[in-house]
Amino acid sequence: MNRRDMLKMSAATLAGALEPAAFAEKNSPQTNAISIEQWGLFEVILKGSSAGNPFKDVSLSAEFTREHRTVKVKGFYDGDGIYRVRFMPDMTGDWVYRTTSSSSALNGQTGRFTCAPATSGNHGPVTTAHRYHFVHADGTPYFPFGTTTYAFLFTKDENAANSLAGMKGLFNKSRVCVLPKPIGQGPQILPFPYSGGDANGRHGTSDYTRFNPEYFQLIEKRIMQLQAAGVEADCILFHPYDAWGYKAMPNEVDDFYLRYVVARLSAFRNVWWAIANEYDLVKAKTMSDWDRFFRIVQEEDPYGHLRSIHHSGVIYDHSKPWCTHASLQSYDFEKSSERRLAWNKPIVYDEIQYEGDVERRWGNLSAEEMTRRFWLATVRGSYASHGEVFLSAENGPHAHESSWSDAGRLRGESAPRIKFLHDLVTKCTKVGLNEFEGSYYLSAGTPNELYLWYFDYHRPARYTFPLPNTANFEAALIDPFEMKETKLTGTFSGKSRIELPNRPFQAIVFHKVSNVTGKPKGESPTPEVMD
Amino acid sequence: MNRRDMLKMSAATLAGALEPAAFAEKNSPQTNAISIEQWGLFEVILKGSSAGNPFKDVSLSAEFTREHRTVKVKGFYDGDGIYRVRFMPDMTGDWVYRTTSSSSALNGQTGRFTCAPATSGNHGPVTTAHRYHFVHADGTPYFPFGTTTYAFLFTKDENAANSLAGMKGLFNKSRVCVLPKPIGQGPQILPFPYSGGDANGRHGTSDYTRFNPEYFQLIEKRIMQLQAAGVEADCILFHPYDAWGYKAMPNEVDDFYLRYVVARLSAFRNVWWAIANEYDLVKAKTMSDWDRFFRIVQEEDPYGHLRSIHHSGVIYDHSKPWCTHASLQSYDFEKSSERRLAWNKPIVYDEIQYEGDVERRWGNLSAEEMTRRFWLATVRGSYASHGEVFLSAENGPHAHESSWSDAGRLRGESAPRIKFLHDLVTKCTKVGLNEFEGSYYLSAGTPNELYLWYFDYHRPARYTFPLPNTANFEAALIDPFEMKETKLTGTFSGKSRIELPNRPFQAIVFHKVSNVTGKPKGESPTPEVMD
Repeated sequence: MNRRDMLKMSAATLAGALEPAAFAEKNSPQTNAISIEQWGLFEVILKGSSAGNPFKDVSLSAEFTREHRTVKVKGFYDGDGIYRVRFMPDMTGDWVYRTTSSSSALNGQTGRFTCAPATSGNHGPVTTAHRYHFVHADGTPYFPFGTTTYAFLFTKDENAANSLAGMKGLFNKSRVCVLPKPIGQGPQILPFPYSGGDANGRHGTSDYTRFNPEYFQLIEKRIMQLQAAGVEADCILFHPYDAWGYKAMPNEVDDFYLRYVVARLSAFRNVWWAIANEYDLVKAKTMSDWDRFFRIVQEEDPYGHLRSIHHSGVIYDHSKPWCTHASLQSYDFEKSSERRLAWNKPIVYDEIQYEGDVERRWGNLSAEEMTRRFWLATVRGSYASHGEVFLSAENGPHAHESSWSDAGRLRGESAPRIKFLHDLVTKCTKVGLNEFEGSYYLSAGTPNELYLWYFDYHRPARYTFPLPNTANFEAALIDPFEMKETKLTGTFSGKSRIELPNRPFQAIVFHKVSNVTGKPKGESPTPEVMD
Repeated sequence: MNRRDMLKMSAATLAGALEPAAFAEKNSPQTNAISIEQWGLFEVILKGSSAGNPFKDVSLSAEFTREHRTVKVKGFYDGDGIYRVRFMPDMTGDWVYRTTSSSSALNGQTGRFTCAPATSGNHGPVTTAHRYHFVHADGTPYFPFGTTTYAFLFTKDENAANSLAGMKGLFNKSRVCVLPKPIGQGPQILPFPYSGGDANGRHGTSDYTRFNPEYFQLIEKRIMQLQAAGVEADCILFHPYDAWGYKAMPNEVDDFYLRYVVARLSAFRNVWWAIANEYDLVKAKTMSDWDRFFRIVQEEDPYGHLRSIHHSGVIYDHSKPWCTHASLQSYDFEKSSERRLAWNKPIVYDEIQYEGDVERRWGNLSAEEMTRRFWLATVRGSYASHGEVFLSAENGPHAHESSWSDAGRLRGESAPRIKFLHDLVTKCTKVGLNEFEGSYYLSAGTPNELYLWYFDYHRPARYTFPLPNTANFEAALIDPFEMKETKLTGTFSGKSRIELPNRPFQAIVFHKVSNVTGKPKGESPTPEVMD
């Protein structure tokens, strides 16, 4: 991607104001009044020297000030003598900035812009809230119902377009690798200069003293596409699926890479940091490396984007203070309660095996089982992520495409069911669901307000629901796979015996519609029936 | 049941020879040559005094001798001045006996009989074999595919008839309570004399110094019905479902009861001893009581029938030497391997929840889930038991019947699927299935001979089976719920890639049909694909 494309891309956020203001003025103070929306991306673009190794030799930062508050952010070299400092303003009003650089041509540059209210659909970055849940910066609840598209950021456009089409409207987060993984279709664009590679782009030599800006420009374009589609980019910084040596770089290169990535990406409001995928399969690194990466990301990111790390077999100690939430690979949802207590943070089961039909045992769930696992995660007060991998991608007209979980066409049938559950949760709560521990059947909600029961493999023909007798509730039977909600006639209060469909994997939801006035009638709420 | 019925019943085993020989001769030496089949029930019937309390005051035993071998067995008082000594001969040939008693009228009685070969369908009692499995005394493999009919032994005839009709041909073991549980239809026949009970037969007083022989005669009739139907009677000696105080009798009454039951029942070849059901819910007893009960049963039973104990929440230490196999209430089949190592005994998951539709969470599995659990138990090298409880029993024309798991009509749909699996196992092995630990997907069998894979929720569209390349195998796809076996064309050897149905809960079985002669062709067996 060339610079012009980058500016066009930024223009989506900057309302067309970036190029004339921050770049066209060529390192002199800005005079035009630029407007950028809250949590948009403001960019200072400076022309400097391309001599030597600007990635290493030139320091650049800027202080952005609004009244008595100053935020310091790092800039980066983007090739061709272009330097950038990106900033995501979190408050409306007038901001000024001043650059600091080891290069006199970049030093002391100043400017100003006005931060306008966020436009529709922009709710700001996501952060943790209510102890076990998430929220956007503007207070809009955010419930992660995400998927997995590892190669989305660097795959070819056709795959990315298919992937984006599949995600849009169905998922609101995707797990994406920042470093490339081999796609299996010849040489790929790479983040470091690479020489001497064979016909498959392997066995060459990386120059770890410099970056390939085009690689990162591509990634940024894709992150903006996700943003436009309402998808949080859960950016995986390291992973073991490597063909070029990136999983075993020297410590100083790891840190150099991390600082560069954070300087480039942290002003994108939809970025989350996943320090690694399956960190424990990256054998060249130790726990102290992973902890250091967390600290570097935390130090370098002025916005405090969400930070976690995803394991294969050995769960990271998510109670560590730099980790904002848990990102698990498992489907033992029954441990959610003890994990919440141990870590005091939201839990996302980011890999619960994949819908599909491949040989590997992690990749051949039915849509029914995938749907079931989302429900189990949800009524345990946690979250889950989707993944999909079908053999059928190997045959037929789309054989040249990669599978969904790299980046490709959505083939499975669980996605709309997951969206159905997402919509239900959104309709039910502004906070997030918490499990009612000790509930006879699995249930979650808010005491006296909302009760969502999920029966999993159980299929009682009737059940006496222990509702409180201080409120009246409306009820609806839910068929999670058929995506049907059937409202029951009347209201319910206190112990309520209700006929249920004689099928497994059904649910029911109770919403409070009014208080019971005066002395509650009927029976008092009693403990649920015990075995 | 009166004495005449009892004799008629015994006659089924004794070929009509018991009455004239052992009873009609009236306490004088036998002269007629009686023939009884191996593992049949021979009975010495003696007329004695009914004065005082013969249950307590009169000791009676007999020594049965065949050449240099003597087996000592206890007799019991059966009411109306009738005393009995029962014996199950385990070898063909001529046996003689002599009684010993504290009553001179019963002492020194002698007789003889000939033990003939077992008739068709009589394979003798079941014992453990091959470390983790079972076998009949004649060497016929026995794979427990049982069910649960708690009240079968003492319920009314209609329920018992329904129960028996449902079991016959489908199940080969049933868990039955020896002490009564309340059936909820007024006063019941009870094992001890009972006085002063109310309209429901409750709140009266038991005379724990005597037994009610009619109760035990009824039980024995039912055990014989099970035997005739090919069903092992897994006799539960204590349980917590009590309405009369039997779960909290004094120690000496417990022991008195145990010795009486073992004297009466141990000569029935289809008896197993379950010391208790949900022992840990019987709060009046301690672990030392349960251990003592095991030892008493072991001492009193000359035939060494199988002995176990069934828990609710706290698993008994099945490694104790008097326990022959594990009888578990759980469905965490993945722990079977460690349990086998810890206990070195067969494992039967005797309660894996029930097929049905009731409110209680243990009682509303779908037939699909029940079938699945049997398969999981099987490929883990263990066994499972069925149970069923439907609300529909509460309504409609059969509302007066009890549910299947007490004793009633079979309503569910898992039973034929369980039978299908039983038949498959019987066809596959003479020993029993052992799990191939570390198998990529669950599988069991015998190395180089038999491989049974079960895919559970996985649905790979194909899989490369790591067969040994030293033999040729035939293969059949199995749909456990549809009860279909589809033979694949040709034979397979070494790594064999096979297309599979794109559905969860499928299986495949490979039988060796020949050795590969000469140098095996194709690839060597390799480790299965790893995650």
